[in-house]
Amino acid sequence: MSSDPLPPEITAITTLSSADAKWVELQRIDWKDQTGKPRLWEVAARKTRGSSGIDAVAIAPILLHPSRPASTLIILQYRPPVAAVCVEFPAGLIDQGETPEAAAIRELKEETGYEGKVISISPTIVSDPGMTTANMQFVVMEVELKDGDPEPQQQLDDGEFIERVVVPLDELHDKLVDYEKNGHAVDARLYHWAAGVDFARSRKW
Amino acid sequence: MSSDPLPPEITAITTLSSADAKWVELQRIDWKDQTGKPRLWEVAARKTRGSSGIDAVAIAPILLHPSRPASTLIILQYRPPVAAVCVEFPAGLIDQGETPEAAAIRELKEETGYEGKVISISPTIVSDPGMTTANMQFVVMEVELKDGDPEPQQQLDDGEFIERVVVPLDELHDKLVDYEKNGHAVDARLYHWAAGVDFARSRKW
Repeated sequence: MSSDPLPPEITAITTLSSADAKWVELQRIDWKDQTGKPRLWEVAARKTRGSSGIDAVAIAPILLHPSRPASTLIILQYRPPVAAVCVEFPAGLIDQGETPEAAAIRELKEETGYEGKVISISPTIVSDPGMTTANMQFVVMEVELKDGDPEPQQQLDDGEFIERVVVPLDELHDKLVDYEKNGHAVDARLYHWAAGVDFARSRKW
Repeated sequence: MSSDPLPPEITAITTLSSADAKWVELQRIDWKDQTGKPRLWEVAARKTRGSSGIDAVAIAPILLHPSRPASTLIILQYRPPVAAVCVEFPAGLIDQGETPEAAAIRELKEETGYEGKVISISPTIVSDPGMTTANMQFVVMEVELKDGDPEPQQQLDDGEFIERVVVPLDELHDKLVDYEKNGHAVDARLYHWAAGVDFARSRKW
């Protein structure tokens, strides 16, 4: 890299019309409720959904290594909507004509350099159904590592700044709490997965 | 109830301007990236965020009963943005001046009738940081039940139709998959928590 990255900076936030927006739009939904009464709902939608009908995939990479604890891989990137560096699972929008499985393999490789195999794919799930139409699939991938494997190269686009961090599964939840204390934003879906793992590991039932 | 609920129905979806919207708006964020280059991001935001700075809470209720397996409580409600009955943790927007903890206790009681104590509150987490400003806190609550306790009454507003379902923790993940197969939408955060629990219970590391 030719020079050190600068801290990203928001210079203006202005109201945007749906007509001027390229990626997202607002919709008014007219609907009849369970009593037959006409009602309204306001919703935000992506304009980019492709033929898969699914906006995005997120990947939980499980790193298996002969001499290190089972770990996952999280990424840190600046997210203008929340004006902070956000801690997330590797993720991305599904390209036109791409399957969710292919998108998961591609995004993991681009954002982290790692190659893995798909272990499970969730059903279609909805990211924030009180507010948006956004949906996604959650993909668990295994990455088998050997002693002495070099750290793979990320394949980032120009202007993409993504840091990857390997975290032992048993430290993930507390690490996310620490990130938030230090001014990062933590993605709700990553947090919920970590909280589920932590709950099951720390409680007996 | 005076008559059986009708199936909810969407009658129209139209583009909405930010000026005409009451609950959500689109914003254009002008920002400078890590190379100093001016860039744009399009984002949807709630207009309703109160003094807590946090939009919403979701609650994982843990039901403890002397003779039944440890369970959680999920809710089913029609969500116009995804045109489906959605399976979610109890959740809701934080009222003006309300703390997240008070909102969690209130929402659990309103939506399910159950009263519990707060066991843990997550840091502020962001619901879909590539697309929206929306944030939330995730609250684990314990509900202690005794043999013979009657099922409590929900406290729903007029026109609110929310079904509650008790699910043993060890059946939660598979039950969510079944719901999706049967045409329901499953909330991504609930799904991730269930997937984390299922992963930790079914794998050794």
